[in-house]
Amino acid sequence: MNTTATLSRLFAGIQADLDTVDKTFQERATSGLTILNSASMHALGAPGKRLRTALTLLAGKLNTYRFEKLLLLSVAFEMTHLATLIHDDIVDESSTRRGNPTVNALFGDKIAILLGDYYFAKTAGLIADIEDPRIDHLFSDTVATVCEGTILEMMTAGNIDLSKETYYEKTRSKTACLMAACSKGGAIISGATPEEIELLYAYGMHLGTAFQIIDDILDYTQDQSTIGKPAGNDLRQGMVTLPLIYALQDAPQNGHYQQVKTLLGEKTHKDEEISEIVEWVTQGNGVKLSLLDAHAQANKAREALYHFPASPDRDVLDELIDFVLMRKK
Amino acid sequence: MNTTATLSRLFAGIQADLDTVDKTFQERATSGLTILNSASMHALGAPGKRLRTALTLLAGKLNTYRFEKLLLLSVAFEMTHLATLIHDDIVDESSTRRGNPTVNALFGDKIAILLGDYYFAKTAGLIADIEDPRIDHLFSDTVATVCEGTILEMMTAGNIDLSKETYYEKTRSKTACLMAACSKGGAIISGATPEEIELLYAYGMHLGTAFQIIDDILDYTQDQSTIGKPAGNDLRQGMVTLPLIYALQDAPQNGHYQQVKTLLGEKTHKDEEISEIVEWVTQGNGVKLSLLDAHAQANKAREALYHFPASPDRDVLDELIDFVLMRKK
Repeated sequence: MNTTATLSRLFAGIQADLDTVDKTFQERATSGLTILNSASMHALGAPGKRLRTALTLLAGKLNTYRFEKLLLLSVAFEMTHLATLIHDDIVDESSTRRGNPTVNALFGDKIAILLGDYYFAKTAGLIADIEDPRIDHLFSDTVATVCEGTILEMMTAGNIDLSKETYYEKTRSKTACLMAACSKGGAIISGATPEEIELLYAYGMHLGTAFQIIDDILDYTQDQSTIGKPAGNDLRQGMVTLPLIYALQDAPQNGHYQQVKTLLGEKTHKDEEISEIVEWVTQGNGVKLSLLDAHAQANKAREALYHFPASPDRDVLDELIDFVLMRKK
Repeated sequence: MNTTATLSRLFAGIQADLDTVDKTFQERATSGLTILNSASMHALGAPGKRLRTALTLLAGKLNTYRFEKLLLLSVAFEMTHLATLIHDDIVDESSTRRGNPTVNALFGDKIAILLGDYYFAKTAGLIADIEDPRIDHLFSDTVATVCEGTILEMMTAGNIDLSKETYYEKTRSKTACLMAACSKGGAIISGATPEEIELLYAYGMHLGTAFQIIDDILDYTQDQSTIGKPAGNDLRQGMVTLPLIYALQDAPQNGHYQQVKTLLGEKTHKDEEISEIVEWVTQGNGVKLSLLDAHAQANKAREALYHFPASPDRDVLDELIDFVLMRKK
């Protein structure tokens, strides 16, 4: 499946609005300081899927489509997302993201910290323009939760005994929560009922969880040329994700368990050692059971969605679930 | 002058409300994550002057005092201030602030980045609770300006030819702008007229500028035991501030000018070299002319304030100007 082609087809009905969101983002991110603009243009130039904007707009289409306000919300959440990525790359000491150099790699940690902060400030302005207290609180709660999720991830790095429950908690707060906020925000702005708002929140949360699980699977199954980073990258960084958790479930306290434990405790790794574990996780139950979990989350997303009457827009949100499951990068 | 005793006397009328602000800050900064709470409690434990809260409350007293909303605004701006300090300490690679270890020194840069972000998120929630679009925008604009000011400071570090104008621009955006936002926000919430709001904004801006100039003077004139850092610390860090700018005005292109130029280009410094420049700035025109500038800013703050009818609360704001000028740490 060609990822870009699929999304283009899926998003054909909102293409013009997606472009307006991009343009507005650039306008609202502008500063009087050249260095801030350069860093910002670089951050914006990185290819993204615009999934969050699509979620916001499509959720907004299920009721009264109010593009003017959805535009502000979309830019706000894309900007929030970018701010968290920029700060994440400092926290993770990453030098590339999807094959491109990160802001910290090009401009240094200091500018990266301040660019993220600047985006948070600008986001608050966008949110204020929407003039809906429910959106104000959605924004604040979401950013706070994402911070907590990032810290939880950091604190649990290198922990071979990480439970599935903690993995899920981390995934919901760090990744899925913002996607849930997008669909919930779209629902709020479009005048959905409280019940519909909660359903679209659940849809976004389960879709986002499936998205992250697939991401974590791809980290084991794909190579550098496809996803812009070498397979086993999470493992190299000491990140214990769902495929590894499942693989370890069946591992006796010797053999692979010991091997992984040693790997997680080391700063540098031999490629052969990483490859051996990657293969074990990929061939055994690790990837298989994770894929089942992703499908279970997808089913829950669909279940929430099917409370809405069938419509072409609901179909797109439905196909988006398949896209998340099937994507290869 | 004993700084703490003076402030206690000045703030006697709002002491109970200041305490409530402290308490509410702690409540609102709480997270479910232990590490975040520990870092937060450490950051909160550092002694501060609570100047920003006092400004907010006292400005609010000049019209209808609405403590419930002023409380939210005070906590929000103290939290914003703390978030910027925490991120600043990473940017400046500082290990102590007022004699205490910084969050980055104790918990590492990563936790410090995320604690700052978490505070921004929480602040957005507090601002939302005030339910006044003018405050929403004041908050967003202020944080964006503070970020720009911090970047401007960073970009101009080590530049011996820094102009007075750029120094003032940096000082207004990095420091004074938040103090101006406090007094302006207090005015907005208390139902001040647009003209009064602008006057209190000007008051805060000039007070904040004087405050920073005095800070920069104290960096040359005070020793470690009084302000918790060695004299000439700014110089060591390559920061060109007003006293140095004035001192350099009269310096020929040899002698001290060359000495400073060499110092600014070096990473490590000999104590004697720093001491020599510190003494030259302190004894010569550097400190003298800066002090005149601080007084000029103070006069402008007073001019704005005197548009309000005399009252005990105006008197406190008036005495606050003297406090800022006379403080020794």
